[in-house]
Amino acid sequence: MKKHIFLLILLGGIQFTLSQNELSKRYNLMPWPHKIQESHSNFLINNDITLSINANDEGRVYSAGVRFLRRLSNRSGIFIDRGFPLKNTSASIEINFDTLSNLDLSDDESYNLNITKDKVLINTITDVGALRALETLLQLVNFNETGYYFEGVIINDTPRFIWRGLMIDTARHFQPIDVIKRNLDAMASVKLNVFHWHLTDDQGFRVESKIYPKLQELASDGLYYSQEQIKGIVAYASNLGIRVIPEFDVPGHASAILTAYPNLGSKDNYNYTIERYAGVFDPTMDPTNEETYVFLDHLFTEMAALFPDKYFHIGGDENEGKHWTENKKIERFKEKHKLKDNHELQTYFNIRLEKILNKLGKHLMGWDEIMTPNMPTTAVIHSWRGKNEGLKSSTLIEAAKKGYQTVLSNGYYIDRMLSVKHHYSVDPIGDAKLTQEEQKRILGAEATMWSELVTPETIDSRIWPRTAAIAERFWSAKEINDIDNMLHRLQSVNNRLEELGITHIKNRAVILRNIANYQDISALQTLADLCEPLKVYSRNAGGTEYKTFSPFTLFADACTADAIKAVSFNNLVKSYNKTYDKVFLNLIIQDLETWSKHYNCFLKISNNPNVKPLELLSENLSKISKLLSSALDKKTINKKELNELNTCISVLRTPFLDTELAIVDSLETLIKYCEANYLIQ
Amino acid sequence: MKKHIFLLILLGGIQFTLSQNELSKRYNLMPWPHKIQESHSNFLINNDITLSINANDEGRVYSAGVRFLRRLSNRSGIFIDRGFPLKNTSASIEINFDTLSNLDLSDDESYNLNITKDKVLINTITDVGALRALETLLQLVNFNETGYYFEGVIINDTPRFIWRGLMIDTARHFQPIDVIKRNLDAMASVKLNVFHWHLTDDQGFRVESKIYPKLQELASDGLYYSQEQIKGIVAYASNLGIRVIPEFDVPGHASAILTAYPNLGSKDNYNYTIERYAGVFDPTMDPTNEETYVFLDHLFTEMAALFPDKYFHIGGDENEGKHWTENKKIERFKEKHKLKDNHELQTYFNIRLEKILNKLGKHLMGWDEIMTPNMPTTAVIHSWRGKNEGLKSSTLIEAAKKGYQTVLSNGYYIDRMLSVKHHYSVDPIGDAKLTQEEQKRILGAEATMWSELVTPETIDSRIWPRTAAIAERFWSAKEINDIDNMLHRLQSVNNRLEELGITHIKNRAVILRNIANYQDISALQTLADLCEPLKVYSRNAGGTEYKTFSPFTLFADACTADAIKAVSFNNLVKSYNKTYDKVFLNLIIQDLETWSKHYNCFLKISNNPNVKPLELLSENLSKISKLLSSALDKKTINKKELNELNTCISVLRTPFLDTELAIVDSLETLIKYCEANYLIQ
Repeated sequence: MKKHIFLLILLGGIQFTLSQNELSKRYNLMPWPHKIQESHSNFLINNDITLSINANDEGRVYSAGVRFLRRLSNRSGIFIDRGFPLKNTSASIEINFDTLSNLDLSDDESYNLNITKDKVLINTITDVGALRALETLLQLVNFNETGYYFEGVIINDTPRFIWRGLMIDTARHFQPIDVIKRNLDAMASVKLNVFHWHLTDDQGFRVESKIYPKLQELASDGLYYSQEQIKGIVAYASNLGIRVIPEFDVPGHASAILTAYPNLGSKDNYNYTIERYAGVFDPTMDPTNEETYVFLDHLFTEMAALFPDKYFHIGGDENEGKHWTENKKIERFKEKHKLKDNHELQTYFNIRLEKILNKLGKHLMGWDEIMTPNMPTTAVIHSWRGKNEGLKSSTLIEAAKKGYQTVLSNGYYIDRMLSVKHHYSVDPIGDAKLTQEEQKRILGAEATMWSELVTPETIDSRIWPRTAAIAERFWSAKEINDIDNMLHRLQSVNNRLEELGITHIKNRAVILRNIANYQDISALQTLADLCEPLKVYSRNAGGTEYKTFSPFTLFADACTADAIKAVSFNNLVKSYNKTYDKVFLNLIIQDLETWSKHYNCFLKISNNPNVKPLELLSENLSKISKLLSSALDKKTINKKELNELNTCISVLRTPFLDTELAIVDSLETLIKYCEANYLIQ
Repeated sequence: MKKHIFLLILLGGIQFTLSQNELSKRYNLMPWPHKIQESHSNFLINNDITLSINANDEGRVYSAGVRFLRRLSNRSGIFIDRGFPLKNTSASIEINFDTLSNLDLSDDESYNLNITKDKVLINTITDVGALRALETLLQLVNFNETGYYFEGVIINDTPRFIWRGLMIDTARHFQPIDVIKRNLDAMASVKLNVFHWHLTDDQGFRVESKIYPKLQELASDGLYYSQEQIKGIVAYASNLGIRVIPEFDVPGHASAILTAYPNLGSKDNYNYTIERYAGVFDPTMDPTNEETYVFLDHLFTEMAALFPDKYFHIGGDENEGKHWTENKKIERFKEKHKLKDNHELQTYFNIRLEKILNKLGKHLMGWDEIMTPNMPTTAVIHSWRGKNEGLKSSTLIEAAKKGYQTVLSNGYYIDRMLSVKHHYSVDPIGDAKLTQEEQKRILGAEATMWSELVTPETIDSRIWPRTAAIAERFWSAKEINDIDNMLHRLQSVNNRLEELGITHIKNRAVILRNIANYQDISALQTLADLCEPLKVYSRNAGGTEYKTFSPFTLFADACTADAIKAVSFNNLVKSYNKTYDKVFLNLIIQDLETWSKHYNCFLKISNNPNVKPLELLSENLSKISKLLSSALDKKTINKKELNELNTCISVLRTPFLDTELAIVDSLETLIKYCEANYLIQ
């Protein structure tokens, strides 16, 4: 008996010393928690499960509890008998917390989640902490043949950064309320807590103003949020423990504002109109016109009432000041006020705005262009530029060192359509050496979903699942950075986003069905599994290929970053190249043999005008796959075949319908392998 | 030369004499138009296509024009250069109309659509007529290898009935705004023009009342429409040429109202609560309490301001008056007012309501229970009962003969999950002999989507595509009734509903993925193609199997009426049974061979708790398919095999997870065929 007890202690001890990475192979949690250990007793989920809130809730935890019970029931098919949270009583799932969150930078989101055989205990400081715990609990639902259960674990969790955001641009393409709501739900599911709402740009002004109604009447094509809708979203987000930061981008990106109120523009007699293309445009508000400040004072005062958060984003980016330089009145103003260039003029403008916002109790936040020498350190710098924009590094560290609070988006521009690995590998602080004071100024980071090329139908597949991995980067410890482990856990998170209504999986087939005019889409699905949209803005070169109302129901819109089959094939080739293990080779040959039949399948639907341009891709994919699989199988290749393979590769390297075949490098690797090992001279 | 002209005239003549049914094999229009002929010259769609409105539009046609251009562009992938309608100019598509519609019973929805090589001309009386024409034009988009075109036809169209409705019950399961909006879009696409909004029932009160806020606060679980949302929907519908008829169901179906205001109930000290089950319940407003009329006067006055339509639905159905009979005060009231039974008491109540509504300029409309001897003929009778409810025929004809305006829903209860053929075969008037005056009183009909068993995720697959065929029944001539022809055209309409966001196709895979916990769903898809949800309310027997918050993410929710593969297999068996043509037999054998492998495929995912209960179905389907295909192929069967087949059939006749295998009769037919022809004694 004593022996057994000793063994138990020993096993317990072993358990506690298991590394995070060991457990992170076992549990598909994302973001990975601060501390986790196993309790060794799962909680079986039955219809008599109950949830109680034993604290002074003001609605946040109650509605989270309702959503939790619905999601649990919908996922498991269990007919939960008590469909609403109970109050101050013993229940299967008990929630305790001390205070209500203010939704500000002082918030405590930590939680303690303890799952044992008969009880799930959630203890937190704030109500928002309880929300975070419930999301973790839903990620711990598992099943066996007979039923569903919560994994027996004990978690103590707390975030690395207090500002973990997603920006959605609703100006370039308007995103209806239901898109915003489901993405807020998804954000909450991976513990993001800041929704940065880009509300105006050259392509549209998206908020109802009662003081300046021309904004929505003349500059939105009828696509804008009513004030009630704005309030509804702010309340919805708050209920999820998410802050809402509005952005009104000035003085540049102002075509829409100036379409409504041209008198505030920097160029006289200019025909301001809603911009239909993408890019950086000249229309700019006139910072030397007092009317501009009257307008912004009134507008911001009206808008500040809709957005209770203390932070208010004024954009401030990409103003090239062309219209300023061209305007003699503005040039005279600069001389008079000793503003030596347009940057100083913009700083003058920003400082005026900061005074307006201070009066409203708001902190001014702006893109990193606002960080000019005279800009007071009370402003918050949103770092978006870095190496890609010709700088040595992102502006984040510079801002922190100069005394500004700062938030990073450089490295998290998900509209660039780069791989999840890329974004996951960007650490906000990296190896920068910072004092504690400086480090504290780095509030966190935001992924940015610019919407030049996304519509309500495709936006989810651009945000997710990559943003889930980015959310882990913002929440979890810096050391949680194993990419393969992340990819494994991401799969499960990716799937479960569907229960929140995220359309990233289901809308792909919709687009392909449309392209194929409702013929069999399997050939297109195979291609969409292998192709990725052109990256880093090369899809819409110069911003002039697509107008805002161009179709985004094309093959490229069905494709995503990290094309699923391409990723797995590339991994196979990499593994084979490392190990020369036959298992990998056989799997490679199997894939190639499948693709060698693609062209036959494709021809059955190639009579559709939007399918036809993919024919060369299909034909060459089939040809290269046939030659390669034969060479790898028979371990022989001749010169003629090699030439044919290389011809195919050069065709496959060209873009097809704004996408690229994401396995070309792997195919080329295999060709080189065959050339090196099997070539008959 | 003269010869050629003569030939052209001759061909034209031939064309004009083609029957409607001949052209209806060629064009997938639904509803089928009043008159159609071919112009023999298609209109090629290019990026320079333009649309102009040459009339005094007040926005309805403009926004329809924008939607038309977007849908055309999204469907075809064509980058249309002019993305917005032009005004009073020559354009590729020109729209002319005379007046604006009032959205009432006097509306003219007729249109004239003329498509030739270089021009599409739309001439109508009203703006709404132009909307109907644009929907027809979108159904005439076709493609060949090189591009898209409008079919060259000339159409003169006008509806049979002025009231063509869809009722959506948003009380049993709340349906968010985006569900309503996309279904309004879909309604407009098949020319339905009345949205009947069932807003309150035992399970919830779904409108914000500012006068009686407890209604939404205590009786909606937070799931209700704000007044701004209601106004938004009414405007959205009006913009689509759709009227909105609100329904506030009283005096029965009132649990929600009485949860908020129990003093208006018929039973003292009764604990009124939001109902969680489905069925007919006792809580009823007290018609003898003057407070009831004060409440309804105020409430209806408030609601009437939100719903501009002249018709106002007060429900009035399924009141069994149990609480009236049990209440002595109410019994005394009946005696005093010489009301001999509860029907007369309800008539007293209805007449009081009619006075309230008259004051508000509204016609009272109610379910056919309100048609009691003393009910004034100013009321509108909504006929829902018929043979299924123990009557000789639907109450529609009786109402028309008694002098009431009337609308039919009997036969169009799509929540009964019956086949599209069934609903399509119900003609509103049928063979009834009516005077012209009586006929005029039959305003039209409505499909009804009661929502006990539907959620926002599944409602589209319950409404569509069956409602498209029903819409044809309401719009097209009685003689357009060929079922096979309708089914053929329905296929294309069904597909294109996806471009309006209807989720009937895409959400099925979502449900199956959830059930399979994101393993391969192909085995489940095969079953969902063959199974239909239990019909005529047998899924939720007695209303007590499901609560409102039970999961509707189950196998039955992935299945639909008219299971696609079952329909085609049943047709094959029917065709073979008629013709004994080998072509059909071979196709039958092919299907059976596919299904014979099903069990092997199924076993790979059967470890999921919600998949497991389908094992017996899969096993027996595979077994029966194997035996049958072998018997049909080899033209021999022995006694033992026959017994085995019959055992399988008896298993397959039982429901699995609230669904039925929709090919059982066909399988049995094949067994009998084998027995009769191939049995070795």
